[in-house]
Amino acid sequence: MVTDAADMDAYLSEPRDLFHGDALCVVRPEDAGEVARVLALCNELGVGIVPQGGNTGLVGGQTPDMSGRQIVLSLQRLDRVREVDPSSDAMTLEAGVTLARAQEIAQSVDRYFPLSLASEGSCTIGGNLATNAGGVHVLAYGAARDLVFGLEVALADGRILSTLGKLRKDNTGYNLTQLFVGSEGTLGVITAATLKLFPRPRSRAVAFLGLDDPAKALALLNFMKGHAGPGLHAFELIPRVGLELVLRHIPGARDPLLSPHPWYALLEIAGFAEGEAERTAALSLAQALEAGLAHDATIAQSLDQAESLWRLRESLSEAQKREGGSIKHDVSVPIERIPAFIAEAGARIAAAFPQARPVPFGHMGDGNLHYNVSQPVGADKAAFLARWDEMNEIVHGLVHDYGGSISAEHGIGRLKRNLLARVKDPVALDLMRALKKTLDPRGVLNPGKLI
Amino acid sequence: MVTDAADMDAYLSEPRDLFHGDALCVVRPEDAGEVARVLALCNELGVGIVPQGGNTGLVGGQTPDMSGRQIVLSLQRLDRVREVDPSSDAMTLEAGVTLARAQEIAQSVDRYFPLSLASEGSCTIGGNLATNAGGVHVLAYGAARDLVFGLEVALADGRILSTLGKLRKDNTGYNLTQLFVGSEGTLGVITAATLKLFPRPRSRAVAFLGLDDPAKALALLNFMKGHAGPGLHAFELIPRVGLELVLRHIPGARDPLLSPHPWYALLEIAGFAEGEAERTAALSLAQALEAGLAHDATIAQSLDQAESLWRLRESLSEAQKREGGSIKHDVSVPIERIPAFIAEAGARIAAAFPQARPVPFGHMGDGNLHYNVSQPVGADKAAFLARWDEMNEIVHGLVHDYGGSISAEHGIGRLKRNLLARVKDPVALDLMRALKKTLDPRGVLNPGKLI
Ligand SMILES: Cc1cc2nc3c(=O)[nH]c(=O)nc-3n(C[C@H](O)[C@H](O)[C@H](O)COP(=O)(O)OP(=O)(O)OC[C@H]3O[C@@H](n4cnc5c(N)ncnc54)[C@H](O)[C@@H]3O)c2cc1C
Ligand SMILES: Cc1cc2nc3c(=O)[nH]c(=O)nc-3n(C[C@H](O)[C@H](O)[C@H](O)COP(=O)(O)OP(=O)(O)OC[C@H]3O[C@@H](n4cnc5c(N)ncnc54)[C@H](O)[C@@H]3O)c2cc1C
Repeated sequence: MVTDAADMDAYLSEPRDLFHGDALCVVRPEDAGEVARVLALCNELGVGIVPQGGNTGLVGGQTPDMSGRQIVLSLQRLDRVREVDPSSDAMTLEAGVTLARAQEIAQSVDRYFPLSLASEGSCTIGGNLATNAGGVHVLAYGAARDLVFGLEVALADGRILSTLGKLRKDNTGYNLTQLFVGSEGTLGVITAATLKLFPRPRSRAVAFLGLDDPAKALALLNFMKGHAGPGLHAFELIPRVGLELVLRHIPGARDPLLSPHPWYALLEIAGFAEGEAERTAALSLAQALEAGLAHDATIAQSLDQAESLWRLRESLSEAQKREGGSIKHDVSVPIERIPAFIAEAGARIAAAFPQARPVPFGHMGDGNLHYNVSQPVGADKAAFLARWDEMNEIVHGLVHDYGGSISAEHGIGRLKRNLLARVKDPVALDLMRALKKTLDPRGVLNPGKLI
Repeated sequence: MVTDAADMDAYLSEPRDLFHGDALCVVRPEDAGEVARVLALCNELGVGIVPQGGNTGLVGGQTPDMSGRQIVLSLQRLDRVREVDPSSDAMTLEAGVTLARAQEIAQSVDRYFPLSLASEGSCTIGGNLATNAGGVHVLAYGAARDLVFGLEVALADGRILSTLGKLRKDNTGYNLTQLFVGSEGTLGVITAATLKLFPRPRSRAVAFLGLDDPAKALALLNFMKGHAGPGLHAFELIPRVGLELVLRHIPGARDPLLSPHPWYALLEIAGFAEGEAERTAALSLAQALEAGLAHDATIAQSLDQAESLWRLRESLSEAQKREGGSIKHDVSVPIERIPAFIAEAGARIAAAFPQARPVPFGHMGDGNLHYNVSQPVGADKAAFLARWDEMNEIVHGLVHDYGGSISAEHGIGRLKRNLLARVKDPVALDLMRALKKTLDPRGVLNPGKLI
């Protein structure tokens, strides 16, 4: 248990320092039994508990409020590997194991664990599941939700529920596992999980294409899905303005194509037979170019080249930050509506924020855009950021009209809690409240978050 | 509304005639609004409602009890196609659309809907989701649960919840969709669903291999996963005794290999590039033979040949029926334990039921066996079947010891309701009861089923 103010500090704010809180203490239990005892006690006393994994969440879900009357429950010491079973393609890990370590464990038995986020060095399996994390391979493997066989969960009253196990098929009752995935620590505390393992791809091709517009990107995506099937592992959209920011601010970045194009797609193809990915990529991209879906394309010829292509995509947030103020939206819409959405959002923002620079990029293959808007060149950063809510209003309003989601990947936490009440179907909200009440009648689990 | 006894009959028993019931009436609403009004009224009056789709369920979930005080709610008239959107890889269908029609709709827009069951001509999307149906392609695409974006559900009190939508990513709160999938009509009535579409495979290879034993089958499965990755669409295990029953009873069936082998694997590989599946199959099977994983193999050279290979597998239940009494178990265990499970179950059954003939076959790729035991040759069928529970006891007990499931595919319904209470984690059972109480406080939804 940590109560010393200086030692507690690391648990009370998150890396970006957007959220800060205070706490009675930080509790660092060693195993599920201890977690359960902490919960039972807090439930008894009515003390709010804030579960925390790697503290990398982007919506303030892992930070206590300012009252100083909640406790932070860190899961980091629950970091044991309970079982690795490559034959059943399953591994059971405790909640505090980091994602990077989980990937390594899979690799050590010649398997693949596809969840992959820029925060993977610090974020934990428990946090990944509590937020249903996404990342770049959702297109082929789904989000965290799709990568779990079962969970061990400490309930509010101190009982431990286990749905752990390695069964791909089990139709004996309600799916309790999925109730906890994505519940952001408000229904129970995840103490362990059995995760799915996959065969390791043996070949990989990464390509970067220059395109006319998002409509062409959509056509290309459909074309590639048809030609690579489940081998299409990633399909990311990047606008020219985004690439330019990267070229300007990120040392070592260079334009992989000879001349500029208004839009780009970065795609990754995986194969299981030797050379299959390269073959599929070469063949299908040649056809795509011929069909006019793209104007130019390069396929990485080495691991190094593949990594520099990916770096262009992954540096986008960083480049926007260096360019000045940027107002962010983590949204999704039905895939086929992405071109219309980008056009309409651009027009509305141009009307309300002349000279602001939308940089819509992201996981097009999942319908997920990081619709981030950079400040006008030379404008006052603070003044621009002061209009954050107004910008959100425009973008989220449009997302709603398009049947989309205002939080595609990062969850609700504290940041979007009030928003949720406005956009969610009232029957769904009501049901969520009823479930919360059933599982946490005294409201001690992550109070003030999500719901 | 149907109240005439003769007309009601078709709704009161199921095809195998294992379950029979009586009802106040059969209600056949036309749309979700009507479903909701029926629920509101029954909830008010405390009348039990038994949702029914295609009436193909194998555990009696869709049949009313004998009291004559429940109503059957048939969803068959809710059979509209609300939207088909190949660009977003999504289609929204009403609950009463049959699975075969859903497959055709997907095909008509050059997409693939992978759920595939022998009952697909009659079973409905609503029933498939309510039972989380499995089938032969779970290995590559998952079960019904994994094929749905969202649902429209009429709740017990007559409100309508909608999570319909075409979003691959939406982290705005608890996953309500998955709560209803697999809940067998006890938490709500599914009125529509948005389903996932997939690219259509362009090449397909079906192979039949002769093996030594289940351990070799496991090694072969792992080998094939590594070589075909997500292209491995099916991996079915068949024992010689099963193939012999098929050869004996099913007209036109013939042994595809020259000499007999103790065990067989039927596998299907799909590809998206032209000729890819054939290439992968030829190459990897040659290596598997060389490595001694199999002794002989044949790859279908035509669609016809592929279908006759599949027919061998799909006729197993029918052949067992023609052979006499057969006691069934729809179980799963962790994949790597299948060989040990088969050996131990065989030994225990031999001890208790000398001469009885276990025919363990099924979806080995998912750890799912149809562990069906045929009566001894020449024994009395009725006397054998009278020991159904005793046999179940042995098999289910062992399944439990192996960390398996006593209902891998077909659900709990009426058939296994009492069993469930004995095998399920008490905390999980308790939570299930709490959820039932929250969503259906008056207990009008499919009373006496599942929980
Ligand atoms: C650089 C960077 C890149 C990122 N990229 C992505 C991305 O591509 N996709 C994406 O989806 N997210 C991304 N994120 C967000 C974040 O990394 C993920 O949401 C991650 O899954 C959080 O894990 P964590 O262990 O850090 O959880 P925390 O931040 O500690 O907690 C997150 C939430 O989960 C709850 N929680 C944590 N552990 C448990 C537990 N064991 N039981 C119950 N509740 C728990 C907390 O209460 C909180 O509500 C990124 C973040 C950063 C900083
Ligand atoms: C020959 C044959 C082969 C089969 N093969 C397989 C197989 O390989 N894999 C497999 O998993 N199953 C299999 N089954 C079982 C069965 O076909 C499936 O479970 C199917 O999904 C049931 O669909 P249905 O529309 O017939 O539902 P029904 O039989 O009408 O109902 C099944 C259950 O779902 C509930 N229900 C039905 N519709 C709704 C709704 N709209 N909302 C809420 N609840 C509802 C019912 O109350 C009942 O509890 C097979 C059955 C047969 C006869």
